Amino acid sequence: MTGTRAPLYAQVEDALVARLRTDLRPGDRMPSEDELISEFGVSRITVRRAVQNLVARGLVVTRPGRGSYAAVPRITQPLTELTGFVEDMEANGLAATARVLTVREIPAPPDARRALELPLGAVVTFIERVRLANGHPISFDRTYLVPELGRLVAQDDLENEPVFALLEECHDTPLVEATYAMNAVTADAAVAAALETPEGSAVLRIERTSYTNGDRPVDYEVLHYRGETITFTTRLPRGTGSR
Amino acid sequence: MTGTRAPLYAQVEDALVARLRTDLRPGDRMPSEDELISEFGVSRITVRRAVQNLVARGLVVTRPGRGSYAAVPRITQPLTELTGFVEDMEANGLAATARVLTVREIPAPPDARRALELPLGAVVTFIERVRLANGHPISFDRTYLVPELGRLVAQDDLENEPVFALLEECHDTPLVEATYAMNAVTADAAVAAALETPEGSAVLRIERTSYTNGDRPVDYEVLHYRGETITFTTRLPRGTGSR
Repeated sequence: MTGTRAPLYAQVEDALVARLRTDLRPGDRMPSEDELISEFGVSRITVRRAVQNLVARGLVVTRPGRGSYAAVPRITQPLTELTGFVEDMEANGLAATARVLTVREIPAPPDARRALELPLGAVVTFIERVRLANGHPISFDRTYLVPELGRLVAQDDLENEPVFALLEECHDTPLVEATYAMNAVTADAAVAAALETPEGSAVLRIERTSYTNGDRPVDYEVLHYRGETITFTTRLPRGTGSR
Repeated sequence: MTGTRAPLYAQVEDALVARLRTDLRPGDRMPSEDELISEFGVSRITVRRAVQNLVARGLVVTRPGRGSYAAVPRITQPLTELTGFVEDMEANGLAATARVLTVREIPAPPDARRALELPLGAVVTFIERVRLANGHPISFDRTYLVPELGRLVAQDDLENEPVFALLEECHDTPLVEATYAMNAVTADAAVAAALETPEGSAVLRIERTSYTNGDRPVDYEVLHYRGETITFTTRLPRGTGSR
Protein backbone atom coordinates (compact mmCIF):
# COMPACT_ATOMS: atom_id res chain seq x y z
CA MET A 1 0.00 0.00 0.00
CA THR A 2 3.05 2.27 0.36
CA GLY A 3 2.79 5.36 -1.79
CA THR A 4 -0.93 4.82 -2.43
CA ARG A 5 -3.37 7.47 -1.25
CA ALA A 6 -6.09 6.22 1.06
CA PRO A 7 -9.42 5.65 -0.76
CA LEU A 8 -11.81 8.60 -0.74
CA TYR A 9 -14.20 7.06 1.80
CA ALA A 10 -11.27 6.52 4.18
CA GLN A 11 -10.21 10.15 3.83
CA VAL A 12 -13.74 11.30 4.70
CA GLU A 13 -13.84 8.78 7.54
CA ASP A 14 -10.54 10.03 8.98
CA ALA A 15 -11.67 13.65 8.77
CA LEU A 16 -14.88 12.81 10.63
CA VAL A 17 -12.97 10.85 13.30
CA ALA A 18 -10.79 13.89 13.90
CA ARG A 19 -13.89 16.01 14.31
CA LEU A 20 -15.46 13.47 16.69
CA ARG A 21 -12.34 13.82 18.85
CA THR A 22 -12.54 17.59 19.03
CA ASP A 23 -15.69 19.49 18.04
CA LEU A 24 -18.44 16.90 18.25
CA ARG A 25 -19.81 15.74 21.61
CA PRO A 26 -21.81 12.54 22.15
CA GLY A 27 -25.36 13.14 20.97
CA ASP A 28 -24.40 15.93 18.56
CA ARG A 29 -25.90 15.64 15.10
CA MET A 30 -23.44 14.69 12.36
CA PRO A 31 -23.43 16.67 9.09
CA SER A 32 -26.04 15.36 6.64
CA GLU A 33 -25.11 13.34 3.55
CA ASP A 34 -25.70 16.39 1.38
CA GLU A 35 -23.47 18.54 3.56
CA LEU A 36 -20.68 15.96 3.43
CA ILE A 37 -21.01 15.54 -0.35
CA SER A 38 -20.65 19.27 -0.80
CA GLU A 39 -17.90 19.71 1.81
CA PHE A 40 -15.66 16.89 0.58
CA GLY A 41 -16.66 16.96 -3.09
CA VAL A 42 -17.29 13.21 -3.17
CA SER A 43 -20.18 10.98 -4.24
CA ARG A 44 -23.08 9.90 -2.08
CA ILE A 45 -21.84 6.30 -2.12
CA THR A 46 -18.47 7.45 -0.73
CA VAL A 47 -20.12 9.46 2.04
CA ARG A 48 -22.37 6.55 2.94
CA ARG A 49 -19.46 4.14 3.13
CA ALA A 50 -17.54 6.51 5.43
CA VAL A 51 -20.52 6.92 7.75
CA GLN A 52 -21.27 3.17 7.73
CA ASN A 53 -17.69 2.52 8.81
CA LEU A 54 -18.07 5.00 11.68
CA VAL A 55 -21.25 3.19 12.72
CA ALA A 56 -19.43 -0.15 12.59
CA ARG A 57 -16.66 1.37 14.75
CA GLY A 58 -19.24 2.48 17.32
CA LEU A 59 -18.41 6.17 16.87
CA VAL A 60 -21.68 7.15 15.22
CA VAL A 61 -25.28 6.00 15.60
CA THR A 62 -27.91 6.44 12.91
CA ARG A 63 -31.58 7.06 13.63
CA PRO A 64 -33.73 6.09 10.64
CA GLY A 65 -35.19 9.17 8.99
CA ARG A 66 -33.41 11.49 11.42
CA GLY A 67 -29.76 11.37 10.38
CA SER A 68 -26.67 10.30 12.32
CA TYR A 69 -25.27 11.35 15.67
CA ALA A 70 -21.98 11.20 17.54
CA ALA A 71 -22.18 8.10 19.73
CA VAL A 72 -21.36 7.76 23.39
CA PRO A 73 -18.05 5.89 23.18
CA ARG A 74 -18.51 2.18 23.84
CA ILE A 75 -15.38 0.48 24.90
CA THR A 76 -14.62 -3.22 24.88
CA GLN A 77 -11.61 -4.10 26.90
CA PRO A 78 -10.03 -7.53 27.14
CA LEU A 79 -8.96 -8.57 30.64
CA THR A 80 -5.69 -10.06 29.51
CA GLU A 81 -2.92 -7.64 30.49
CA LEU A 82 -2.37 -4.82 32.94
CA THR A 83 -2.96 -1.69 30.88
CA GLY A 84 -3.60 1.95 31.75
CA PHE A 85 -6.46 4.16 30.61
CA VAL A 86 -4.56 5.90 27.83
CA GLU A 87 -3.39 2.59 26.40
CA ASP A 88 -6.94 1.18 26.63
CA MET A 89 -8.54 4.12 24.85
CA GLU A 90 -5.91 4.11 22.10
CA ALA A 91 -6.64 0.42 21.52
CA ASN A 92 -10.28 1.46 21.00
CA GLY A 93 -9.36 4.24 18.57
CA LEU A 94 -10.29 6.94 21.09
CA ALA A 95 -8.32 9.96 22.27
CA ALA A 96 -7.69 9.89 26.04
CA THR A 97 -7.47 12.99 28.17
CA ALA A 98 -7.60 13.64 31.93
CA ARG A 99 -8.98 16.28 34.28
CA VAL A 100 -7.08 16.36 37.57
CA LEU A 101 -9.37 17.18 40.52
CA THR A 102 -7.12 16.45 43.51
CA VAL A 103 -3.43 15.87 44.21
CA ARG A 104 -2.48 15.80 47.87
CA GLU A 105 -0.85 13.81 50.61
CA ILE A 106 -3.31 12.19 53.02
CA PRO A 107 -3.24 9.61 55.83
CA ALA A 108 -3.72 6.28 54.04
CA PRO A 109 -7.34 5.09 54.27
CA PRO A 110 -7.66 1.47 55.50
CA ASP A 111 -8.22 -0.09 52.05
CA ALA A 112 -5.24 1.74 50.53
CA ARG A 113 -3.07 0.90 53.54
CA ARG A 114 -3.89 -2.80 53.24
CA ALA A 115 -3.40 -2.86 49.47
CA LEU A 116 -0.08 -1.01 49.62
CA GLU A 117 1.09 -2.95 52.71
CA LEU A 118 1.80 0.25 54.62
CA PRO A 119 2.08 0.59 58.41
CA LEU A 120 -0.59 2.25 60.53
CA GLY A 121 -0.20 6.04 60.29
CA ALA A 122 1.43 5.97 56.84
CA VAL A 123 0.65 8.68 54.31
CA VAL A 124 -0.11 8.24 50.61
CA THR A 125 -0.32 10.57 47.63
CA PHE A 126 -3.98 10.80 46.68
CA ILE A 127 -4.93 11.75 43.11
CA GLU A 128 -8.46 12.15 41.77
CA ARG A 129 -8.86 12.29 38.00
CA VAL A 130 -11.68 12.16 35.50
CA ARG A 131 -10.57 10.19 32.47
CA LEU A 132 -12.16 11.13 29.15
CA ALA A 133 -12.39 9.42 25.77
CA ASN A 134 -12.96 11.79 22.85
CA GLY A 135 -13.85 14.41 25.48
CA HIS A 136 -16.50 12.24 27.14
CA PRO A 137 -16.08 11.22 30.82
CA ILE A 138 -15.55 7.46 31.03
CA SER A 139 -13.86 6.80 34.34
CA PHE A 140 -13.39 8.55 37.67
CA ASP A 141 -10.19 7.29 39.27
CA ARG A 142 -8.98 7.60 42.85
CA THR A 143 -5.28 6.74 42.93
CA TYR A 144 -3.20 6.11 46.04
CA LEU A 145 0.58 5.97 45.61
CA VAL A 146 3.19 4.89 48.12
CA PRO A 147 4.72 8.09 49.53
CA GLU A 148 8.23 7.92 48.04
CA LEU A 149 6.84 7.59 44.50
CA GLY A 150 3.76 9.69 45.12
CA ARG A 151 5.85 12.74 46.01
CA LEU A 152 7.61 12.48 42.65
CA VAL A 153 4.43 11.89 40.63
CA ALA A 154 2.70 14.81 42.38
CA GLN A 155 5.24 17.13 40.69
CA ASP A 156 4.52 15.68 37.24
CA ASP A 157 2.14 16.82 34.52
CA LEU A 158 -0.83 14.61 35.44
CA GLU A 159 -3.17 16.27 32.94
CA ASN A 160 -1.02 14.96 30.11
CA GLU A 161 0.97 12.02 31.42
CA PRO A 162 -0.56 8.76 32.59
CA VAL A 163 0.60 7.52 36.00
CA PHE A 164 1.80 4.20 34.56
CA ALA A 165 4.05 6.00 32.06
CA LEU A 166 5.39 8.30 34.79
CA LEU A 167 6.21 5.38 37.09
CA GLU A 168 7.82 3.32 34.35
CA GLU A 169 9.56 5.92 32.25
CA CYS A 170 10.39 8.71 34.70
CA HIS A 171 10.64 7.10 38.12
CA ASP A 172 12.36 3.83 37.40
CA THR A 173 9.47 1.70 38.63
CA PRO A 174 8.53 -1.01 36.15
CA LEU A 175 5.08 -2.47 36.69
CA VAL A 176 4.99 -6.25 36.72
CA GLU A 177 1.39 -7.21 37.40
CA ALA A 178 -1.81 -6.12 39.13
CA THR A 179 -4.68 -7.62 41.08
CA TYR A 180 -8.22 -6.63 40.08
CA ALA A 181 -11.42 -6.81 42.12
CA MET A 182 -14.51 -5.82 40.11
CA ASN A 183 -18.09 -5.21 41.17
CA ALA A 184 -21.18 -3.22 40.22
CA VAL A 185 -22.36 -0.24 42.27
CA THR A 186 -24.55 2.81 41.71
CA ALA A 187 -23.05 6.29 41.41
CA ASP A 188 -23.04 8.33 44.63
CA ALA A 189 -23.11 12.15 44.43
CA ALA A 190 -19.33 12.55 44.06
CA VAL A 191 -18.95 9.85 41.42
CA ALA A 192 -22.02 11.06 39.52
CA ALA A 193 -20.71 14.64 39.43
CA ALA A 194 -17.30 13.53 38.20
CA LEU A 195 -18.77 11.29 35.50
CA GLU A 196 -21.49 13.82 34.51
CA THR A 197 -24.05 11.07 34.91
CA PRO A 198 -27.18 10.91 37.09
CA GLU A 199 -26.80 9.83 40.72
CA GLY A 200 -27.84 6.18 40.96
CA SER A 201 -26.63 5.23 37.49
CA ALA A 202 -24.69 2.00 37.03
CA VAL A 203 -20.95 2.04 37.70
CA LEU A 204 -18.41 -0.72 37.25
CA ARG A 205 -16.03 -0.35 40.17
CA ILE A 206 -12.54 -1.83 40.03
CA GLU A 207 -9.99 -1.94 42.82
CA ARG A 208 -6.62 -2.41 41.20
CA THR A 209 -3.29 -2.82 42.96
CA SER A 210 -0.20 -2.65 40.74
CA TYR A 211 3.06 -4.27 41.76
CA THR A 212 6.62 -3.51 40.79
CA ASN A 213 9.61 -5.87 41.01
CA GLY A 214 9.91 -7.93 44.16
CA ASP A 215 6.11 -8.22 44.46
CA ARG A 216 6.05 -4.70 45.95
CA PRO A 217 2.71 -2.85 45.68
CA VAL A 218 3.17 0.78 44.60
CA ASP A 219 -0.15 1.97 43.12
CA TYR A 220 -3.66 1.29 44.46
CA GLU A 221 -6.54 2.64 42.41
CA VAL A 222 -10.31 2.63 42.72
CA LEU A 223 -11.70 3.08 39.21
CA HIS A 224 -15.34 4.00 38.56
CA TYR A 225 -16.42 3.35 34.98
CA ARG A 226 -19.70 4.62 33.55
CA GLY A 227 -21.64 1.37 33.23
CA GLU A 228 -23.05 1.99 29.76
CA THR A 229 -19.67 2.78 28.22
CA ILE A 230 -17.46 -0.19 29.01
CA THR A 231 -17.56 -3.96 28.68
CA PHE A 232 -14.76 -6.15 29.96
CA THR A 233 -14.20 -9.39 28.11
CA THR A 234 -12.28 -12.53 28.85
CA ARG A 235 -12.09 -16.14 27.74
CA LEU A 236 -11.76 -18.86 30.36
CA PRO A 237 -10.94 -22.54 29.96
CA ARG A 238 -13.01 -25.21 31.69
CA GLY A 239 -10.87 -26.34 34.63
CA THR A 240 -9.94 -29.93 35.30
CA GLY A 241 -10.94 -29.54 38.93
CA SER A 242 -14.22 -27.80 38.24
CA ARG A 243 -16.62 -30.68 37.80
CA MET B 1 -7.94 -36.97 62.49
CA THR B 2 -9.75 -40.19 61.56
CA GLY B 3 -11.92 -41.43 64.36
CA THR B 4 -11.58 -38.17 66.27
CA ARG B 5 -14.74 -36.19 66.94
CA ALA B 6 -14.66 -32.60 65.71
CA PRO B 7 -13.88 -30.08 68.48
CA LEU B 8 -16.93 -28.67 70.29
CA TYR B 9 -16.71 -25.23 68.67
CA ALA B 10 -16.68 -26.89 65.22
CA GLN B 11 -19.80 -28.88 66.10
CA VAL B 12 -21.61 -25.71 67.15
CA GLU B 13 -20.30 -23.94 64.02
CA ASP B 14 -21.54 -26.73 61.74
CA ALA B 15 -24.95 -26.74 63.39
CA LEU B 16 -25.26 -22.98 62.88
CA VAL B 17 -24.13 -23.21 59.25
CA ALA B 18 -26.88 -25.78 58.64
CA ARG B 19 -29.39 -23.39 60.18
CA LEU B 20 -28.08 -20.47 58.07
CA ARG B 21 -28.75 -22.58 54.99
CA THR B 22 -32.32 -23.37 55.95
CA ASP B 23 -34.16 -21.39 58.66
CA LEU B 24 -32.20 -18.16 58.91
CA ARG B 25 -32.49 -15.44 56.25
CA PRO B 26 -29.99 -12.60 55.75
CA GLY B 27 -30.58 -9.98 58.43
CA ASP B 28 -32.17 -12.44 60.87
CA ARG B 29 -30.88 -12.22 64.43
CA MET B 30 -28.70 -15.17 65.49
CA PRO B 31 -29.37 -16.86 68.86
CA SER B 32 -27.63 -15.03 71.73
CA GLU B 33 -24.53 -16.44 73.44
CA ASP B 34 -26.66 -17.46 76.42
CA GLU B 35 -29.14 -19.24 74.19
CA LEU B 36 -26.35 -21.12 72.41
CA ILE B 37 -24.68 -22.07 75.71
CA SER B 38 -27.91 -23.51 76.98
CA GLU B 39 -28.90 -25.19 73.70
CA PHE B 40 -25.56 -26.91 73.04
CA GLY B 41 -24.46 -27.35 76.67
CA VAL B 42 -21.03 -25.81 75.96
CA SER B 43 -18.95 -23.02 77.48
CA ARG B 44 -19.10 -19.35 76.53
CA ILE B 45 -15.59 -19.54 75.05
CA THR B 46 -16.71 -22.38 72.75
CA VAL B 47 -19.77 -20.44 71.61
CA ARG B 48 -17.68 -17.34 70.96
CA ARG B 49 -15.14 -19.26 68.92
CA ALA B 50 -17.90 -20.79 66.77
CA VAL B 51 -19.49 -17.39 66.12
CA GLN B 52 -16.11 -15.75 65.43
CA ASN B 53 -15.44 -18.42 62.82
CA LEU B 54 -18.80 -17.69 61.17
CA VAL B 55 -17.91 -13.99 61.11
CA ALA B 56 -14.55 -14.81 59.54
CA ARG B 57 -16.37 -16.92 56.92
CA GLY B 58 -18.62 -13.97 56.08
CA LEU B 59 -21.76 -15.84 57.13
CA VAL B 60 -22.51 -13.75 60.21
CA VAL B 61 -22.06 -10.08 61.06
CA THR B 62 -21.85 -8.78 64.63
CA ARG B 63 -23.15 -5.40 65.71
CA PRO B 64 -21.48 -4.27 68.92
CA GLY B 65 -23.91 -4.37 71.84
CA ARG B 66 -26.70 -5.73 69.62
CA GLY B 67 -25.73 -9.33 68.93
CA SER B 68 -25.03 -11.12 65.67
CA TYR B 69 -27.04 -11.47 62.47
CA ALA B 70 -27.14 -13.71 59.42
CA ALA B 71 -25.09 -11.94 56.75
CA VAL B 72 -26.00 -11.27 53.14
CA PRO B 73 -23.65 -13.69 51.39
CA ARG B 74 -20.64 -11.94 49.91
CA ILE B 75 -18.96 -13.88 47.22
CA THR B 76 -15.49 -13.46 45.82
CA GLN B 77 -14.98 -15.29 42.60
CA PRO B 78 -11.72 -15.62 40.70
CA LEU B 79 -11.99 -15.22 36.95
CA THR B 80 -9.65 -18.08 36.18
CA GLU B 81 -11.75 -21.00 34.95
CA LEU B 82 -15.17 -21.59 33.47
CA THR B 83 -17.30 -22.64 36.43
CA GLY B 84 -21.02 -22.88 37.06
CA PHE B 85 -23.05 -21.29 39.83
CA VAL B 86 -23.22 -24.40 42.02
CA GLU B 87 -19.46 -24.90 41.80
CA ASP B 88 -18.87 -21.21 42.59
CA MET B 89 -21.12 -21.19 45.65
CA GLU B 90 -19.60 -24.41 46.98
CA ALA B 91 -16.15 -22.82 46.67
CA ASN B 92 -17.49 -20.01 48.89
CA GLY B 93 -18.92 -22.42 51.45
CA LEU B 94 -22.49 -21.61 50.46
CA ALA B 95 -25.37 -23.93 49.55
CA ALA B 96 -26.66 -23.31 46.01
CA THR B 97 -30.27 -23.78 45.03
CA ALA B 98 -32.35 -22.69 42.03
CA ARG B 99 -35.88 -21.51 41.33
CA VAL B 100 -36.94 -22.24 37.76
CA LEU B 101 -39.22 -19.51 36.36
CA THR B 102 -39.36 -20.41 32.65
CA VAL B 103 -38.48 -23.37 30.41
CA ARG B 104 -39.70 -23.09 26.85
CA GLU B 105 -38.69 -23.12 23.22
CA ILE B 106 -38.60 -19.66 21.60
CA PRO B 107 -37.37 -18.10 18.36
CA ALA B 108 -33.73 -17.21 19.08
CA PRO B 109 -33.35 -13.51 19.96
CA PRO B 110 -30.61 -11.75 17.91
CA ASP B 111 -27.93 -11.83 20.66
CA ALA B 112 -28.50 -15.54 21.35
CA ARG B 113 -28.56 -16.34 17.64
CA ARG B 114 -25.23 -14.58 17.08
CA ALA B 115 -23.62 -16.14 20.15
CA LEU B 116 -24.79 -19.66 19.27
CA GLU B 117 -24.05 -19.19 15.55
CA LEU B 118 -27.58 -20.22 14.57
CA PRO B 119 -29.33 -19.43 11.29
CA LEU B 120 -32.11 -16.87 11.01
CA GLY B 121 -35.37 -18.43 12.20
CA ALA B 122 -33.69 -20.94 14.54
CA VAL B 123 -35.28 -21.81 17.87
CA VAL B 124 -33.54 -22.12 21.25
CA THR B 125 -34.52 -23.53 24.61
CA PHE B 126 -34.95 -20.58 26.94
CA ILE B 127 -34.58 -21.10 30.70
CA GLU B 128 -35.00 -18.44 33.39
CA ARG B 129 -33.71 -19.28 36.85
CA VAL B 130 -33.08 -17.45 40.09
CA ARG B 131 -29.91 -18.81 41.69
CA LEU B 132 -29.73 -18.68 45.48
CA ALA B 133 -26.90 -18.99 47.98
CA ASN B 134 -28.01 -20.09 51.43
CA GLY B 135 -31.55 -19.25 50.31
CA HIS B 136 -30.68 -15.70 49.27
CA PRO B 137 -31.12 -14.64 45.60
CA ILE B 138 -27.71 -13.92 44.07
CA SER B 139 -28.14 -14.25 40.34
CA PHE B 140 -30.95 -14.18 37.79
CA ASP B 141 -29.92 -16.20 34.76
CA ARG B 142 -31.40 -16.29 31.28
CA THR B 143 -30.05 -19.35 29.48
CA TYR B 144 -30.35 -20.08 25.76
CA LEU B 145 -29.42 -23.59 24.61
CA VAL B 146 -28.97 -24.86 21.08
CA PRO B 147 -32.18 -26.76 20.21
CA GLU B 148 -30.86 -30.34 20.08
CA LEU B 149 -29.39 -30.07 23.60
CA GLY B 150 -32.06 -27.72 24.91
CA ARG B 151 -34.80 -30.26 24.25
CA LEU B 152 -32.96 -32.80 26.38
CA VAL B 153 -32.16 -30.36 29.20
CA ALA B 154 -35.78 -29.13 29.26
CA GLN B 155 -36.79 -32.66 30.41
CA ASP B 156 -34.26 -32.65 33.26
CA ASP B 157 -34.62 -31.65 36.91
CA LEU B 158 -33.46 -28.04 36.59
CA GLU B 159 -34.39 -27.18 40.19
CA ASN B 160 -31.74 -29.59 41.40
CA GLU B 161 -29.26 -30.11 38.59
CA PRO B 162 -27.00 -27.38 37.18
CA VAL B 163 -27.03 -27.03 33.39
CA PHE B 164 -23.26 -27.55 33.16
CA ALA B 165 -23.54 -30.89 34.97
CA LEU B 166 -26.47 -31.95 32.79
CA LEU B 167 -24.60 -31.10 29.60
CA GLU B 168 -21.39 -32.78 30.70
CA GLU B 169 -22.64 -35.78 32.64
CA CYS B 170 -25.99 -36.62 31.03
CA HIS B 171 -25.82 -35.31 27.48
CA ASP B 172 -22.29 -36.11 26.43
CA THR B 173 -21.32 -32.47 25.86
CA PRO B 174 -18.05 -31.58 27.54
CA LEU B 175 -17.52 -27.85 28.00
CA VAL B 176 -14.13 -26.63 26.87
CA GLU B 177 -14.14 -22.89 27.40
CA ALA B 178 -16.32 -19.80 27.50
CA THR B 179 -16.22 -16.15 26.48
CA TYR B 180 -17.32 -13.56 29.05
CA ALA B 181 -18.49 -9.98 28.49
CA MET B 182 -19.11 -8.12 31.76
CA ASN B 183 -20.67 -4.74 32.43
CA ALA B 184 -22.60 -2.83 35.09
CA VAL B 185 -26.31 -2.04 34.69
CA THR B 186 -29.20 -1.14 36.98
CA ALA B 187 -31.99 -3.63 37.70
CA ASP B 188 -35.09 -3.27 35.51
CA ALA B 189 -38.46 -4.39 36.88
CA ALA B 190 -38.06 -8.06 35.84
CA VAL B 191 -34.51 -8.40 37.15
CA ALA B 192 -35.38 -6.57 40.39
CA ALA B 193 -38.36 -8.85 41.03
CA ALA B 194 -36.31 -11.98 40.41
CA LEU B 195 -33.47 -10.81 42.66
CA GLU B 196 -35.81 -9.41 45.35
CA THR B 197 -33.91 -6.14 45.18
CA PRO B 198 -35.16 -2.59 44.47
CA GLU B 199 -35.54 -1.50 40.86
CA GLY B 200 -32.50 0.59 39.93
CA SER B 201 -30.07 -1.27 42.18
CA ALA B 202 -26.65 -2.20 40.83
CA VAL B 203 -26.34 -5.38 38.81
CA LEU B 204 -23.24 -6.99 37.36
CA ARG B 205 -24.33 -8.35 33.98
CA ILE B 206 -22.37 -11.10 32.27
CA GLU B 207 -22.93 -12.52 28.82
CA ARG B 208 -21.31 -15.92 28.72
CA THR B 209 -21.07 -18.26 25.76
CA SER B 210 -19.84 -21.79 26.52
CA TYR B 211 -18.23 -23.94 23.86
CA THR B 212 -17.93 -27.69 23.52
CA ASN B 213 -15.39 -29.60 21.43
CA GLY B 214 -14.69 -28.28 17.96
CA ASP B 215 -15.21 -24.67 19.12
CA ARG B 216 -18.97 -25.23 18.90
CA PRO B 217 -21.11 -22.84 21.04
CA VAL B 218 -23.89 -24.68 22.90
CA ASP B 219 -24.95 -22.50 25.84
CA TYR B 220 -25.44 -18.71 25.85
CA GLU B 221 -26.33 -17.14 29.19
CA VAL B 222 -27.07 -13.65 30.40
CA LEU B 223 -26.33 -13.60 34.13
CA HIS B 224 -27.50 -10.78 36.42
CA TYR B 225 -25.70 -10.71 39.76
CA ARG B 226 -26.81 -8.55 42.68
CA GLY B 227 -24.09 -5.93 42.73
CA GLU B 228 -23.52 -5.90 46.48
CA THR B 229 -23.06 -9.66 46.74
CA ILE B 230 -20.31 -10.53 44.29
CA THR B 231 -16.80 -9.41 43.45
CA PHE B 232 -14.86 -10.89 40.56
CA THR B 233 -11.11 -11.00 40.94
CA THR B 234 -8.23 -11.56 38.60
CA ARG B 235 -4.51 -10.97 38.36
CA LEU B 236 -3.03 -9.67 35.13
CA PRO B 237 0.61 -9.43 34.03
CA ARG B 238 1.98 -6.22 32.54
CA GLY B 239 2.19 -6.93 28.80
CA THR B 240 5.30 -6.46 26.76
CA GLY B 241 3.30 -4.60 24.12
CA SER B 242 1.51 -2.38 26.59
CA ARG B 243 3.93 0.51 27.01
